[in-house]
Amino acid sequence: MLVMQTKHHTLPIIALLTDFGLTDSYVGVMKGVMLSICPTAQLIDLTHAIEPQNVRQGAYVLLNTLGYMPPQTIYVAVVDPGVGSSRHPIAVKTNRAIFVGPDNGLLSYALKHCEIQEMVVLQNKHYLLSTISSTFHGRDIFSPAAAYIANGVPLDQLGPSLSKLEWLPPPRFEVTPQAVYGEVLDIDHFGNIATSIGRLTWGNNDMLVLVPFFDPQSEPILSIEPERCAVQINNHVIDILGLTFAAVSRGSLIALINSAGQLEVAINHGNAARELGVQVGDPVILSINS
Amino acid sequence: MLVMQTKHHTLPIIALLTDFGLTDSYVGVMKGVMLSICPTAQLIDLTHAIEPQNVRQGAYVLLNTLGYMPPQTIYVAVVDPGVGSSRHPIAVKTNRAIFVGPDNGLLSYALKHCEIQEMVVLQNKHYLLSTISSTFHGRDIFSPAAAYIANGVPLDQLGPSLSKLEWLPPPRFEVTPQAVYGEVLDIDHFGNIATSIGRLTWGNNDMLVLVPFFDPQSEPILSIEPERCAVQINNHVIDILGLTFAAVSRGSLIALINSAGQLEVAINHGNAARELGVQVGDPVILSINS
Amino acid sequence: MLVMQTKHHTLPIIALLTDFGLTDSYVGVMKGVMLSICPTAQLIDLTHAIEPQNVRQGAYVLLNTLGYMPPQTIYVAVVDPGVGSSRHPIAVKTNRAIFVGPDNGLLSYALKHCEIQEMVVLQNKHYLLSTISSTFHGRDIFSPAAAYIANGVPLDQLGPSLSKLEWLPPPRFEVTPQAVYGEVLDIDHFGNIATSIGRLTWGNNDMLVLVPFFDPQSEPILSIEPERCAVQINNHVIDILGLTFAAVSRGSLIALINSAGQLEVAINHGNAARELGVQVGDPVILSINS
Repeated sequence: MLVMQTKHHTLPIIALLTDFGLTDSYVGVMKGVMLSICPTAQLIDLTHAIEPQNVRQGAYVLLNTLGYMPPQTIYVAVVDPGVGSSRHPIAVKTNRAIFVGPDNGLLSYALKHCEIQEMVVLQNKHYLLSTISSTFHGRDIFSPAAAYIANGVPLDQLGPSLSKLEWLPPPRFEVTPQAVYGEVLDIDHFGNIATSIGRLTWGNNDMLVLVPFFDPQSEPILSIEPERCAVQINNHVIDILGLTFAAVSRGSLIALINSAGQLEVAINHGNAARELGVQVGDPVILSINS
Repeated sequence: MLVMQTKHHTLPIIALLTDFGLTDSYVGVMKGVMLSICPTAQLIDLTHAIEPQNVRQGAYVLLNTLGYMPPQTIYVAVVDPGVGSSRHPIAVKTNRAIFVGPDNGLLSYALKHCEIQEMVVLQNKHYLLSTISSTFHGRDIFSPAAAYIANGVPLDQLGPSLSKLEWLPPPRFEVTPQAVYGEVLDIDHFGNIATSIGRLTWGNNDMLVLVPFFDPQSEPILSIEPERCAVQINNHVIDILGLTFAAVSRGSLIALINSAGQLEVAINHGNAARELGVQVGDPVILSINS
Repeated sequence: MLVMQTKHHTLPIIALLTDFGLTDSYVGVMKGVMLSICPTAQLIDLTHAIEPQNVRQGAYVLLNTLGYMPPQTIYVAVVDPGVGSSRHPIAVKTNRAIFVGPDNGLLSYALKHCEIQEMVVLQNKHYLLSTISSTFHGRDIFSPAAAYIANGVPLDQLGPSLSKLEWLPPPRFEVTPQAVYGEVLDIDHFGNIATSIGRLTWGNNDMLVLVPFFDPQSEPILSIEPERCAVQINNHVIDILGLTFAAVSRGSLIALINSAGQLEVAINHGNAARELGVQVGDPVILSINS
């Protein structure tokens, strides 16, 4: 049976994240290049709707997909305002996945959660398109490199080794006994507001346990009673920290732990970001009444 | 070899319909989960642009895809305002396809056109992700369940049998000898207005034959001369019931039978919904002059 | 190795370009029809966001993907305002790819760059869906035809041969020793403005070499010193013809050669089309100071 066979001959997976949108043929052309080189690749679109040139949003979204892709997934991430300039095109092999993209911090939030094994600069012209434009490295450099990696080409064939990565500063996250200070990281399609306050999990005795999201090696640093919490955002205070949207009536505000383990502000059947006038970067406070 | 084999071992098809949009990584993450479990699945995106929380629109769009998917397609449909609440996550096996989604009516329009063979509640933790969030069952419950079904796991392994489904009320559809009363069901990308009046087919002598769309077992209940018809919608009357957009001049209104067999109002080279100010739910009348 | 095998047993590739958008299930339904007939096809979405009924934009975008798809790709292109009217549904076999779509000029820019080997009208009902609607030939004619071609059905089985194609007039492109006159062809997701002035490549001595884009057999007709160029568009003059967006400061205008070899106007980290109020069809002049 085919299913049995694939245990031994898994098709390579390439997962794409860009700010290219879907209104042009940029993403389709990247796929054509990849399948020309590696016809058996399976392609997953993570999203192509990262805000144009918003490297940090791309880094955050990429991180949140990390636990859910097949082992040995090859990520191609392109949010690349410096395309054609001196920033390096790179590939990074880790214990969890292989990453291909510009060395501008885009990969750094995800890499913080991986053990890096090898980093190279994509310089070997044998594994790039024959003509390299100065504006579309997604097509000319990153897609062919990813497809050759999918074909089994070892990273050290793709170019010289890189010793030091660009890292993005982590988002705001400060903890005191009375409050956790963060910021809005992402607003989703539903208007739900994801913040940098997390990772939160439900521990014993219905206590919320806080582990710094961007420091995965860290131990829990705070244990919180949900009844004593309130969330402040844009002059609004939300004091219901619930489990599901349906925990409040239609149209009501709720704070909850989202599917990435982050503090989120939402409206049941509504659009919280629009109602509260919230934007990415706005400050958020989780205050703890003692 | 692979091409030869697949004639005998068709790859499983999973078709996705959600209200998640494509601006976040939700859909990509679901695909990662599915391909982690069933690497040979072929994934078809039906649409991810169902209006947020609009279960009925999702049910209607799902129904319209039913005749066009490969046999044994596994549908994963997620429009799920009650995620995390008491509504059941379910899988339903029928003579035409297998459906996975919330038991909130989303599957019910399609199921009305199938013979149901088996219904189960997705409770067996062995076939779900190890951690179940309260806000993203698309990732944690529906995707793994669909992928295990694609791997050949029998439905009765996924959880206890379900005896009674949630059904959505059908859209407005009332027939008198002088008129058919319906409502706007969907407005497409082009601004074409699909209504609940149908299914209409061209019969003998160029007569239109009306069979109730949401009651597929029903016999034809009306035979209509197209020349005697007029369509009323938002204080507009359209008396041309044609075959193609091009039957009227550019910019002119036309009523026609759409590709789902429903009465549709359109403008040749234009956006009818915008011009007429029409919204989903607005009343529509097909009047028949005697 | 899997990669070795696929050299001999490549899966057929079908690349889709439409104006159907992704908010409805039209594209998903087309994919269902194709995979029902050819379960091994690999599908690439080029874009579904061609402006509704804008055949020329579709023709231009299709052309720009031509060099980047796998050999023997089957293109299905549907921008079809005359659906259901007398225009022919066709398939065209060339030295580079096979094209399936309406005979309304949509394929003609790409076909100008191919050697046509065979052209047929899609009339054989055996290779279409059993019911042909008058409004959705993408589903009923083009998808099944493409999938049967992917299965290896020879073109002459699909219908009678076609002797003469519809051709679109090329976009504006006039050359004098002092200036090249063109028009805006496309505005991308970033607001970058692509023009009909090209194809430009960097030649010896850092001279720009101009070859008519829409006449690929033509010889270079002009050699330009970039320092002597200025671009006029909507009462703006841009005199920096650079290599990358990053060649100017954030927020500044720049003209460059885009990844399709066309003259492009952009803003580093900005949206040029919005800032300059430019629309598709607006005139553009590349003036050359002597």
